Amino acid sequence: MPAATGDRRLTAQFAFLDEVDRLKTILRASPIGDGSRRENSAEHSWHIAIYALVLADQAGPQVRIDRVIRMLLLHDIVEIDAGDVPIHMAHDPAEQEAKERVAADRLFGLLPPDQGRNFRALWEEFEAAESPDAVFAKALDRVQPILQNLAAGGGSWTDYDVTLDQIDSRVGVKVERGAPRLWNFVRARILPFFAAAGKG
Amino acid sequence: MPAATGDRRLTAQFAFLDEVDRLKTILRASPIGDGSRRENSAEHSWHIAIYALVLADQAGPQVRIDRVIRMLLLHDIVEIDAGDVPIHMAHDPAEQEAKERVAADRLFGLLPPDQGRNFRALWEEFEAAESPDAVFAKALDRVQPILQNLAAGGGSWTDYDVTLDQIDSRVGVKVERGAPRLWNFVRARILPFFAAAGKG
Repeated sequence: MPAATGDRRLTAQFAFLDEVDRLKTILRASPIGDGSRRENSAEHSWHIAIYALVLADQAGPQVRIDRVIRMLLLHDIVEIDAGDVPIHMAHDPAEQEAKERVAADRLFGLLPPDQGRNFRALWEEFEAAESPDAVFAKALDRVQPILQNLAAGGGSWTDYDVTLDQIDSRVGVKVERGAPRLWNFVRARILPFFAAAGKG
Repeated sequence: MPAATGDRRLTAQFAFLDEVDRLKTILRASPIGDGSRRENSAEHSWHIAIYALVLADQAGPQVRIDRVIRMLLLHDIVEIDAGDVPIHMAHDPAEQEAKERVAADRLFGLLPPDQGRNFRALWEEFEAAESPDAVFAKALDRVQPILQNLAAGGGSWTDYDVTLDQIDSRVGVKVERGAPRLWNFVRARILPFFAAAGKG
């Protein structure tokens, strides 16, 4: 393509790359493993992409791991404008969804139009949680905070006074749907914590 | 596979997934874009994976972007044991390389053997910087801190008193090799900073 066209494309691409840097400032409810601070959404996104690489053999035969990884890398970008809503905190899902749509318009709208459409479609697919890739991606996004809370000795489970029943209904069903054997394994790991806390 | 074998595999996989969480505590020389703090290697790895997704059309025809993304997600994990060495800081490359090999033995050794070998091979390929995928991955790893320093108004360029000639010789050659048009674009962006600082 001519240099001027190429430069316009790169200018749009770097507007997006510079802007998404702000995901490093969005704090989540769950901590990093040593419990020293809350995790941010950029490092969380990296961690679950590694989960996808490592746990690929837990995915069903229709799942394409590289598409799952792309989805996971992009899935939280809307939080730059819409913020992170902790799963154990009371909130209005319709209101949050509306905020995230406005955020997606602005953020994916920074990119060249073909790329913006492409990335947005991946994000919408993740949010819809219906395709095999999205169901597996959601399972990983939900299971990682469990391991973070466990490593840190409670994390957001303690902050929000969470019971095992709540984990099962809010998190377990989604992990089980995408990766049933993985959920069995992880649930067995967290039982002693909830039993000891008198919430299991 | 039988449940017991599957559980042993998952136990090894989670040993790795829990351990690599520590990459979130490894601080780099370059800042996050708002200049408020240094970037950690986990969020840096996320950011350059997004660079690969966005800048895929800057890669040569032999480059497979999903392999590049896998490489970038894994490339800094050795820093958990070996630390990050800022590019503009004097250091002994042979000593650092030896440290990183020991780190790779330990960290990839946590995984089931087939996966450990596979991930290690990707890391070795990145380090060797010879394959088209690795050359492009290295270009992205080198160009992102340039944009971070520029966004933050100097960052590690100021801390290490860096000149444009040093950028050209330490960074530019590697970016140019993997993504020549990208380097032209980025270099034009940083010229005013170095001119204003009297180091251009």
